Amino acid sequence: MSWVDDANASLLTDLYELTMSASYFAQEMNEVATFDLFVRELPERRNFLVACGLEQALNYLSESRFEANEIDYLATLDLFTDDFLEFLSKLRFTGEVRAIPEGEIAFGGEPLLSVTAPLIEAQIAETFLLNCITFQTMIASKAARVALASGDRRFVDFSPRRDHGADAALKGARAAFIGGASATSNVLAGRIYGIPLSGTMAHSYVMAFENEAEAFRAYGRCFPQKALLLIDTFDVEEGARRAVEVARELASEGIRIRGVRIDSGDLAPLASAVRKILDEAGFEDIEIILSGDLDEYRIKELMDDGVPVDSFGVGTQLGTSADAPTLGGVYKLVADKSGPKIKLSAGKATLPGRKQVYRFEERGRMQRDVMALEKEEVRGGRSLLECAMLDGQRVGGSETLTDVRDRCLASLDKLPETLRSLEPHQDAYPVVHSKDLDELVRRARGQSH
Amino acid sequence: MSWVDDANASLLTDLYELTMSASYFAQEMNEVATFDLFVRELPERRNFLVACGLEQALNYLSESRFEANEIDYLATLDLFTDDFLEFLSKLRFTGEVRAIPEGEIAFGGEPLLSVTAPLIEAQIAETFLLNCITFQTMIASKAARVALASGDRRFVDFSPRRDHGADAALKGARAAFIGGASATSNVLAGRIYGIPLSGTMAHSYVMAFENEAEAFRAYGRCFPQKALLLIDTFDVEEGARRAVEVARELASEGIRIRGVRIDSGDLAPLASAVRKILDEAGFEDIEIILSGDLDEYRIKELMDDGVPVDSFGVGTQLGTSADAPTLGGVYKLVADKSGPKIKLSAGKATLPGRKQVYRFEERGRMQRDVMALEKEEVRGGRSLLECAMLDGQRVGGSETLTDVRDRCLASLDKLPETLRSLEPHQDAYPVVHSKDLDELVRRARGQSH
Repeated sequence: MSWVDDANASLLTDLYELTMSASYFAQEMNEVATFDLFVRELPERRNFLVACGLEQALNYLSESRFEANEIDYLATLDLFTDDFLEFLSKLRFTGEVRAIPEGEIAFGGEPLLSVTAPLIEAQIAETFLLNCITFQTMIASKAARVALASGDRRFVDFSPRRDHGADAALKGARAAFIGGASATSNVLAGRIYGIPLSGTMAHSYVMAFENEAEAFRAYGRCFPQKALLLIDTFDVEEGARRAVEVARELASEGIRIRGVRIDSGDLAPLASAVRKILDEAGFEDIEIILSGDLDEYRIKELMDDGVPVDSFGVGTQLGTSADAPTLGGVYKLVADKSGPKIKLSAGKATLPGRKQVYRFEERGRMQRDVMALEKEEVRGGRSLLECAMLDGQRVGGSETLTDVRDRCLASLDKLPETLRSLEPHQDAYPVVHSKDLDELVRRARGQSH
Repeated sequence: MSWVDDANASLLTDLYELTMSASYFAQEMNEVATFDLFVRELPERRNFLVACGLEQALNYLSESRFEANEIDYLATLDLFTDDFLEFLSKLRFTGEVRAIPEGEIAFGGEPLLSVTAPLIEAQIAETFLLNCITFQTMIASKAARVALASGDRRFVDFSPRRDHGADAALKGARAAFIGGASATSNVLAGRIYGIPLSGTMAHSYVMAFENEAEAFRAYGRCFPQKALLLIDTFDVEEGARRAVEVARELASEGIRIRGVRIDSGDLAPLASAVRKILDEAGFEDIEIILSGDLDEYRIKELMDDGVPVDSFGVGTQLGTSADAPTLGGVYKLVADKSGPKIKLSAGKATLPGRKQVYRFEERGRMQRDVMALEKEEVRGGRSLLECAMLDGQRVGGSETLTDVRDRCLASLDKLPETLRSLEPHQDAYPVVHSKDLDELVRRARGQSH
């Protein structure tokens, strides 16, 4: 066994979630508490986040349980009483989840997810929820930047080989699609999530044939209207001429070459030269796909230079969010039976209480977010946190991935211009606290001293 | 479904592996070929790699197959003929694998794995093998740096919440242990791989009680000899005094507090102050665990400053290899029925032929590596690539994780001093080509023009 299903990831948890829970159980401390999951601060190179991963988080909360064989393993650790293990074996999540819908823009400090449940249920879920939501949010946010850079051109997730393990390749493909990718090369992600698949060919394929033309011909005949030919194994311009030659030859068999891919070298002049060769041969309809260590910065340069390109293949940089490969996601106790809670550790303070985030928009553009207490009245804003689970049951069904992706692309359209830039402008968007929230912070600070 | 088992990750593949294979099948091209998996160049901040991930790779190769429901999915893509799908459904890996054993030091350009098999079997495995080996090698290499920085102190993998998905949390814990971590907080990794588990408590735990002393007391009673208390929720020095108070109180019940953890603030002076408080109270045996955004650089500073510490908790930076979150792993055709193969794309050239890597050591220190042809005689060196699979069957059993970890730690001891530094010195270690390999490169370059 090496991967398990999200719906039964009960042991995918930090040991301390279980030891703390054992202590709560021994103390009969299991009253309802609220935990907020949020990203403290955006990485330097991120101006916004795209909320993502809720679907898998809800699946985990509604399905996960400790199976008998898992309880048996825990018993071997010599840490837990039989009573606690018996309790764990019956544990089900019975709480409430409020969350910012997937695909929506969010900012540092804003709760992406807020869990209200008996203390132990809420505590044990911490590790998985952080892993699931933080990773997908990171990748969707990166993909959204690639989408902004790509403008009206498509981009495809080519990352599976460089992703951090198998689950990252799956959830990463999902998050990349939500953030704007048009397809993925990952067949399993295509199957699980219904994401369109895309693929070309490898250099080794070309090298396996007598010569380039033979390789192109074989591929064209195998995929009559869909073949994408890799033309940089030997020499890009010669490769383009070879593609033209084969396209002409196969046209008589009713076969059309769909595109050519350039994966190395100086892409801008090469793409221009290739476009010229294709156009002069009458193949204006053959697309050009560019790939090879691309990210949003490189893509923006290519787009700014007016390079002729139809789509981009983006791998490593997208699937690992390589320029910001971690998000500081945290899961903090903000209320319990005694009321709102605050944490004061140096640089790690939290905002107390059950909260709501209101977004103010004007003429189709986001103006500011106001973080307020849940019950506080804040007029004129749209509330972002929605109820996703009540009494352990999902509220409403799963959203289709296309709906989530549409929400993301619509949200990107509402971003202020400064935030659409690839350059750091994160301070440009105001996320302010309501009067009642500020007042509560003051009171809570006073009490905890 | 969202995660699947490594042993059946057949669809976790780039679409082009399948389309190329379909074309090979149509052309009846399925003769034996050799592919090398290697990292082209080390990231700037890495002086060496620790080979890792072979166990899961072999498991995949020996067990993976296309199940009927997977074939059904592929049929819906409208890309493949019935004959090819029928062929896929019967496909088993029947080839040979040579690899550098897990835990061994390796360098850029050296084959970590070399697959010799009928072309289609070798091709289809590319995506999974790269994903599996590159990720674990990246994390084991990062962990080895943390081990070098930590000297004789222990460090624990605290990364699951920040890892890229669930599989990264599992395989990352495994790779971190091989690279030198003494334990992980990840319960599922403990179960699957038998890695020792470690955990303390969260700030929310302390906050859930009336006061800090209550929290410490409850935890101490729940885990009589094992309790690690988090002392920075309010004020670190006060927390330390509180821990002393509770340790004294519980001592009369036969309970011993094992350690205290500091997770925020200026760790060096805080640890010194805490050590003083503990020692003056007669608790020289209470350990100090430091955590909070640690990496090998921070740990080295703390160690250089002589900060009193027993172990480090390392999370985000370890589990994501945050300063070098990608490794440029590639899988290249190096030989087929026509002989050695070479690729000439700009900046992406490959070394042709089946190869062996010989390591020369003197007085217990590595001196240089020589990359040679497999059949070439190179005297005085130890050959690194070993046969791991023959005719699709594993050669020898699985190694224990402890054996692999011991190999890694022994290899680290043999590193030249310059490479043990955290600063970039990767050019300091010579990886040279044998005469026959150089000669073959010259000949192959000539032929392919």
